[in-house]
Amino acid sequence: MERRYRATVEYDGCDYLGFQIQARGRTIQGELEKALERVTQEPARVIGAGRTDAGVHALGQVIAFNSTWRHSPPELQRALNAVLPPEIAISELDPARSEFHPRYDALWRQYRYTIINQPVRSPLWQRYACHVPAALDVAAMQAASRELLGVHDFAAFGRPMHEESTRRQVLQAEWVAEDRRLVFTITANAFLYRMVRNIVGSLLRVGRGELAAAEMAALLQAPDRAAAGPPAPARGLCLMKVAYVE
Amino acid sequence: MERRYRATVEYDGCDYLGFQIQARGRTIQGELEKALERVTQEPARVIGAGRTDAGVHALGQVIAFNSTWRHSPPELQRALNAVLPPEIAISELDPARSEFHPRYDALWRQYRYTIINQPVRSPLWQRYACHVPAALDVAAMQAASRELLGVHDFAAFGRPMHEESTRRQVLQAEWVAEDRRLVFTITANAFLYRMVRNIVGSLLRVGRGELAAAEMAALLQAPDRAAAGPPAPARGLCLMKVAYVE
Repeated sequence: MERRYRATVEYDGCDYLGFQIQARGRTIQGELEKALERVTQEPARVIGAGRTDAGVHALGQVIAFNSTWRHSPPELQRALNAVLPPEIAISELDPARSEFHPRYDALWRQYRYTIINQPVRSPLWQRYACHVPAALDVAAMQAASRELLGVHDFAAFGRPMHEESTRRQVLQAEWVAEDRRLVFTITANAFLYRMVRNIVGSLLRVGRGELAAAEMAALLQAPDRAAAGPPAPARGLCLMKVAYVE
Repeated sequence: MERRYRATVEYDGCDYLGFQIQARGRTIQGELEKALERVTQEPARVIGAGRTDAGVHALGQVIAFNSTWRHSPPELQRALNAVLPPEIAISELDPARSEFHPRYDALWRQYRYTIINQPVRSPLWQRYACHVPAALDVAAMQAASRELLGVHDFAAFGRPMHEESTRRQVLQAEWVAEDRRLVFTITANAFLYRMVRNIVGSLLRVGRGELAAAEMAALLQAPDRAAAGPPAPARGLCLMKVAYVE
C-alpha cells in the first residue's frame, strides 16, 4: 500500500545546481529521487518545502514523497542514508498524512546567512560563509533589520515563484556576532525568490554606509528592485528550519 | 637583503596529502612554497611548526621563511593570499628575528578534535568532524582526559618524529558539548606523531565503555601502544594555535 512520508534533509549545496531537479547536472531533489528509487525499487517523486539555489545549504529542508515501502520508517531512513552521497543526509523521517505538502502546509521558514567579516578570507569557512573584508556597521545593519519585521510588500527584495502576492510576514530578522562570524537569522511565513540573499545584499550596503536604514524601510513602502543591494553569494545561506502545525 | 618572516596559516586539509611536501600530490607546504616563488620570483623554503597529516586542518599553523621581498609585510600577505588556492590563506604575517624557528621555538601547541555524536551523519560537518553514531559517556571521557594532565610518557599514544624522548607535558585536555558537537581541546608543550588522534581514539573507547579511565591512566605508567585505541579519523582534527615567547 502506498503511504506518504515526510523527511528532514541536511545538505551541503556547494557542488549542486540547487534543490530542484534539472535536465542536466546534480541536484538535491535528483539525488533524493535516485536514492529512493534505488532503495524502494519504484519510481519516486520528491516535493521540497523550498527550492534552494545552487550553492545554498540546508540543515532542515523538509520533503514529502509516497512509497509502498514495507519495512519501518527508521529502516527506510538508514537505507536512504546508506546510498545518498556524503553531501546529503536524511536527519528525520516519519509517516505523514496523505495530503501533507511541505510547501503549502508550512507555517514559517527560517534561514541563516553567515558572513566572515575580517580582512583575510577564511579557508575553513569558504564553503559556508561569505567573506566581507571591509569593516561593517553592525548596529546600523541591526536597526535596518528591525524595519523588516511585520507584514510588508517585499517586491524590492525578490519576485514570487508564481503569480502570487509579494506581501510576506517577517517574524525575526537579527544579527548575532559569533567568534569571527556575523550571523543573520531571518524567519518569515514564506519567502520570495532570492529574498534572503537580496535582503542580506541590501543590509551589507547599510553596513558599508551606502544605504541608510530609513532608505531600506522606504523600499518596503515603494518597492524598487534596482535600489536594493545585489544578492549576497549563495554559499553563506542555509535553510535552517521549516515549521508545521503538528 | 634577505629577511626572515613568520606567518600564521589557516587551511582546509581535506584535499591535501598533509603539511609536508611530497614527491607527488598537493601538500600545504608545497602550495605555500609555490605561492612564495610566484610572488617573490626567488626559490622558497617554508618550515612549519607541526607536520599535520593528510586531511587534518589548521586555524593557526605557524610557518617561517626567508625572502628578499622589498615591499611591506602586508603587501606580501595580500600577494600570497591572491595566488594561494581557496583552501589555504595567510591570516598573519610579520618580520621575525633571523633565527626564529616555528618548531623549536614553540612553547605549546593547541589542537581541537570535533565529533558529531548523533545517529545520523551530518553533511554540513563531514569535512570537519568525525561522526560517532553511538551514545558516548562524556563524563567518563572527561575523567579520563584529566588523567592526561601533567608530564607523562606518552609512548602508548604515538612515536617521536626523531629519536627524542616520548615524555610530553599536557596543559589542557577537556571536552565541551557545543550544539550537536563534542569538542575536545588539548594543549601540550609538544606532541608525538599522531598523538592527538591516538588519544581521541582511546577516549572514544572510554566513551563506549570499552576502556576504563583508570586503564587509560595505566597506559601512561606502562606504555602499551596495542592497548590504546585506534587513531580517530584525520578530518576531525584542527591545529588551533602555536604559542611563542614574544
